[in-house]
Amino acid sequence: MREIGIDEIIELLKNANKENIYDLDNYVHPADILEAIMDREDIHELLQQLPKELIAEIIEEADEEDQIKILQHFTNKEKSEILNSMSSDDVTDLIDELDEDKKSHLIGLLDKETREDVERLLEYESDTAGGIMTTEFLAIYDDKTIESVLKYIRSETDAETTYYLYVVDREHHLKGVVTLRDIVSNEMTTRIKEIMNPNVISVHYNQDQEEVSHVFEKYGFMLMPVVDDDNHMIGVITVDDILEIMVEETTEDIHRMAGINKEEKVDGSITDSIKSRLPWLIVNLITALLASAVIDLFSDTISKIVALSAVMTIISGMGGNAGTQTLTIIIRGLSLGEIDKENATRILRKEVVVGLATGGVIGVFVAAIAMFYEFNPLFGLVAAVAMILNMLCAAIAGYAVPIVLEKIKVDPALASGVFVTTFTDVLGFFFFLGLATIAMPYL
Amino acid sequence: MREIGIDEIIELLKNANKENIYDLDNYVHPADILEAIMDREDIHELLQQLPKELIAEIIEEADEEDQIKILQHFTNKEKSEILNSMSSDDVTDLIDELDEDKKSHLIGLLDKETREDVERLLEYESDTAGGIMTTEFLAIYDDKTIESVLKYIRSETDAETTYYLYVVDREHHLKGVVTLRDIVSNEMTTRIKEIMNPNVISVHYNQDQEEVSHVFEKYGFMLMPVVDDDNHMIGVITVDDILEIMVEETTEDIHRMAGINKEEKVDGSITDSIKSRLPWLIVNLITALLASAVIDLFSDTISKIVALSAVMTIISGMGGNAGTQTLTIIIRGLSLGEIDKENATRILRKEVVVGLATGGVIGVFVAAIAMFYEFNPLFGLVAAVAMILNMLCAAIAGYAVPIVLEKIKVDPALASGVFVTTFTDVLGFFFFLGLATIAMPYL
Repeated sequence: MREIGIDEIIELLKNANKENIYDLDNYVHPADILEAIMDREDIHELLQQLPKELIAEIIEEADEEDQIKILQHFTNKEKSEILNSMSSDDVTDLIDELDEDKKSHLIGLLDKETREDVERLLEYESDTAGGIMTTEFLAIYDDKTIESVLKYIRSETDAETTYYLYVVDREHHLKGVVTLRDIVSNEMTTRIKEIMNPNVISVHYNQDQEEVSHVFEKYGFMLMPVVDDDNHMIGVITVDDILEIMVEETTEDIHRMAGINKEEKVDGSITDSIKSRLPWLIVNLITALLASAVIDLFSDTISKIVALSAVMTIISGMGGNAGTQTLTIIIRGLSLGEIDKENATRILRKEVVVGLATGGVIGVFVAAIAMFYEFNPLFGLVAAVAMILNMLCAAIAGYAVPIVLEKIKVDPALASGVFVTTFTDVLGFFFFLGLATIAMPYL
Repeated sequence: MREIGIDEIIELLKNANKENIYDLDNYVHPADILEAIMDREDIHELLQQLPKELIAEIIEEADEEDQIKILQHFTNKEKSEILNSMSSDDVTDLIDELDEDKKSHLIGLLDKETREDVERLLEYESDTAGGIMTTEFLAIYDDKTIESVLKYIRSETDAETTYYLYVVDREHHLKGVVTLRDIVSNEMTTRIKEIMNPNVISVHYNQDQEEVSHVFEKYGFMLMPVVDDDNHMIGVITVDDILEIMVEETTEDIHRMAGINKEEKVDGSITDSIKSRLPWLIVNLITALLASAVIDLFSDTISKIVALSAVMTIISGMGGNAGTQTLTIIIRGLSLGEIDKENATRILRKEVVVGLATGGVIGVFVAAIAMFYEFNPLFGLVAAVAMILNMLCAAIAGYAVPIVLEKIKVDPALASGVFVTTFTDVLGFFFFLGLATIAMPYL
């Protein structure tokens, strides 16, 4: 990679005279400028001397929080110039983060065309195809010649990317797609309908962004058209937005599975972290209390056979581990769209068999451990049976909990873990201590 | 999305006469054909009547396992035709999965040009830029005119994508980039050096694929050139491969964090699941044994105060939950490249403060619970102090374990969880039961 250090960028920004600075993006990518300036004391001075189109490009690389920080360094007139240079989907995402007052203030700064685009885009749910698409794309009529299309491409500078050209009829129904390569490889007089590929795959504006990213991944697309109910083309989604969404969505999943609010950043503030984690710790505490109440229920038995307390944590803990394995496989399968009606029963059956089989193996070990603490075969048997039962329940809960949560529209990544480990703790203690109480006369 | 059902595809494949079938990819995408045929009894008959170039496209959409399954339906001569139609990086990935015998057999079927490409690609590590790049790209000389470049584009049909054209000198040093749009927007006599952007970002062939995907995400690229030590251009990486890698790598991380072998599939076989999970369950069992041994150490104390056994699981469990939160934030931060020398100390300090603060809050609740079981303020105090100490250790372990594993080149996602929960279990029991034993005379 062409290495251009932060210091070098800052030097460039500071020393370049006005003329040079307009060429700046020949030397350095806006994403690198963003990285270099963001945490500096003199960000205000540095930003002031950059041309507004470059500021627009830098803002497009930033996350919403930084976007707003950068924008604050400018007057209303400058803000207007910057926002109008940005692509409509980025302006929409930025404005969408603000409260109503600031929202309408910024919308007021937009020129007519951008404002109309943004107001339309604001109507779509932010996590759907409509919410992530841009309205700046090139659509061409199928009866045009290549010569006139080339003229059109040269005149249109707004479109985000021009490699794929979407073909529409006069009512803007999506008809096909041609690549710029097709265009340059044919005669000037060829009509688009002769070279277009009619097999164009599109998404509906209402489709969830996670599903959209599966479509991108399945087909390996770089760009995809978005249509309305009547197959009118209304926007395009670019793969760079999909990359960002995939990173965000998986971070959200991974964090939620560990009981962390999705928005916590690794180097964020202490109060943000406490706010994001404490609620889940308290929920966990309540479920831990439940498990502890089960133990208290059997305190008489424990007071007679103290070794129970050493073995019971193994049985509940191992159940929790097995449940987490099943649960993780299911949650990831759900978010990759790999679980459907067709294979659901087969997967459940598999998990049950795996739970019984691994439970059997672990059960033998646990029996051996139990007999080491208390030299009594029956004690070992009680431990083994409790272990197998708990692993079976872990498999069923690890499968059923995320599936049910998904059905009732709760994110399985968010809540499954707490439910499943509560099951395995409570049932683990209950099976083991309960069986031990029954077998007590012979222990 | 244009809906074409599986039944419709199968009908098309079955009934189309030879002439129609050559137009098939005007109606249906190879990824859809793959999905439709893969689990069918009559896959052999369906495959036989498809043109070999389409088979090549279908294979390119499949994962390695399915690729090999499909290929088995053809004779050596047919295999040769199919493999030579595929892009060199896909052939390489396919061949790389096989054992040595089959590998050299398939390489023997390739034509000279493809074979040379594949043999070169096989030398790169599979999870580096070199391992995921393709050698089919368009490079142009900077002193050429647009007219001659257009001629070149029309003649070259192998390149995966032609929107970005990389500019090299006569020794193939990477010099710049132009888009096809730049090409069509300028005069035929313009020389490439006048319109190229010299600020081209590339990756070194040895760079890890995870880092490469960060570069793609940061800059929003669709395509990126790969260079060797001397900045010679040797290949390109396309964003669709990056999408797949990102999905694979995050699935691997998520699975590993739960103690699952990275390759387990949600609807895979029972034996695969057992093989992937049992080893980690056994590792967990050994660490659970450690925790249980600590409990056994204090069996005298427990036999005198049975309520200890109900409260101790809360203290160890809550420590485990808090440790997992920290650990998850750190692991995800590491894999997104968000933790560096600069912010490492600040993050540790944050985690310690968060651990103490949440420990304090949870400690108060735990004290109340403990006093409910055993009406003694000292018992409550012992529980609260043990809880806070355990949360503090959870924060430190949750931070330090993944960082150390990363340093010694072990995937933190793979092993951190076991270490951290062992810490929190063992220390949780030790702090609580130890303090209780000391305080015993007053309990």
